[in-house]
Amino acid sequence: MNRLKKMLQAHPSPAGSNGEQAMACIEACFDCAEICEICADACLSEGDASALAQCIRLNLDCSAICDVTGTLLARTGHRDANTLHLQLHACAQACRSCADECERHAQHMDMEHCRICAEACRRCAEACDAMVAALVP
Amino acid sequence: MNRLKKMLQAHPSPAGSNGEQAMACIEACFDCAEICEICADACLSEGDASALAQCIRLNLDCSAICDVTGTLLARTGHRDANTLHLQLHACAQACRSCADECERHAQHMDMEHCRICAEACRRCAEACDAMVAALVP
Amino acid sequence: MNRLKKMLQAHPSPAGSNGEQAMACIEACFDCAEICEICADACLSEGDASALAQCIRLNLDCSAICDVTGTLLARTGHRDANTLHLQLHACAQACRSCADECERHAQHMDMEHCRICAEACRRCAEACDAMVAALVP
Amino acid sequence: MNRLKKMLQAHPSPAGSNGEQAMACIEACFDCAEICEICADACLSEGDASALAQCIRLNLDCSAICDVTGTLLARTGHRDANTLHLQLHACAQACRSCADECERHAQHMDMEHCRICAEACRRCAEACDAMVAALVP
Repeated sequence: MNRLKKMLQAHPSPAGSNGEQAMACIEACFDCAEICEICADACLSEGDASALAQCIRLNLDCSAICDVTGTLLARTGHRDANTLHLQLHACAQACRSCADECERHAQHMDMEHCRICAEACRRCAEACDAMVAALVP
Repeated sequence: MNRLKKMLQAHPSPAGSNGEQAMACIEACFDCAEICEICADACLSEGDASALAQCIRLNLDCSAICDVTGTLLARTGHRDANTLHLQLHACAQACRSCADECERHAQHMDMEHCRICAEACRRCAEACDAMVAALVP
Repeated sequence: MNRLKKMLQAHPSPAGSNGEQAMACIEACFDCAEICEICADACLSEGDASALAQCIRLNLDCSAICDVTGTLLARTGHRDANTLHLQLHACAQACRSCADECERHAQHMDMEHCRICAEACRRCAEACDAMVAALVP
Repeated sequence: MNRLKKMLQAHPSPAGSNGEQAMACIEACFDCAEICEICADACLSEGDASALAQCIRLNLDCSAICDVTGTLLARTGHRDANTLHLQLHACAQACRSCADECERHAQHMDMEHCRICAEACRRCAEACDAMVAALVP
């Protein structure tokens, strides 16, 4: 992930005063997007995928939303603050919905992939909250 | 687009009471995603791409957000209402930001691709508003 | 889909001599991407999702590959012919793999969504083949 | 990235005999996808974006292709070997095209973001080649 940081510092219009929060949020979003995608596939490999259908959908939703949110943040050359604000709220909510569901499976069915995924989702939700706070004028 | 409608009707868990609004919104989102992607590329082909840098970024943001919003809606087997609600708000805002910018170029620089794109963005913003209204319990 | 055509015609660097094949292929790719995404969700809603796990994965693969292939083609302002050629081959293969699997479920389990999806995949595979042929110098 | 590794090891159907190459390739693909996306935005922020239009397009193509290739590989629960093989070829080519273009700007215009991006693209192209070799039966 240090390469991502070097890349963002080489950008001719870097992130500005909320750069620390932005960097942490970009990393958390891309991390969560990848892990949710793998969790969906891992759930499909479990014996009873039907019992995990809701989890798979929340994984896929969360992965797609985190990916687009990270991309918006990484486009530091501009910031459409209104859209970014709303997108961060949607992302935090998607992460919390997915974390709630994954935690259930981590606890009741002892699924390690759901435990790791829930952690990534919680971290991303908090990073989105911190970024929203940093955007306030 | 009739194929999309047939497909959604063949889904074992179809969209329910807000199905009409959902269908219109899914079509508007995917339509807008594709048109914004092409508008970004068309802007890059104009003589002075630097003057259109902001437009290109809003196009790319809007395309990605519309795509993920359409996909969430099309996943009718479940609905995480909280996330969907917030994502629709973010999508409507992204569409309005992009439409505002594209309309400027349509008027002052007579760019037909920006005119078509602004129309697609306005239509999608309205479809998202209607979908939000239809989601209220 | 007429809006997509108008948009591509408004592009300052339109598609050129293979424009007809390109337009047909772009439409087929975006159509297939959307339908495969819905087929994955429909399969998750069937009683025994585990029996459809392979189908769901092929749907998700095919959807993502069709989306990126359509986007490459729609970026008519340039064409990296080598990459486009290989990407079209990958897309045609993804469509055929998905169509083969969906046809099985359409026949043996009478799943209408898999039947519609298989048709979209076959159409897209043929459009990719035609586009590859049109690219040859 | 260690989280990605832990996640893939928690998958009930892990990657198998080519797991090392697959892991390296997944990381290289997602890394390259993110860096290319930022390079496109950085190029848009340079004084003369029109001179970089081709670079921006190759960045966007490469980012989208790397993302889908990484996702296919990360879905270890199945492997459609034919599609994966072709997609890896397309990805390696997209990375080489983008690296060639970025290297020119790194050398002649001393653009640090293009230098970092070219490195990420070369690394990803090599990882795709190694993965193709590991897939051969």
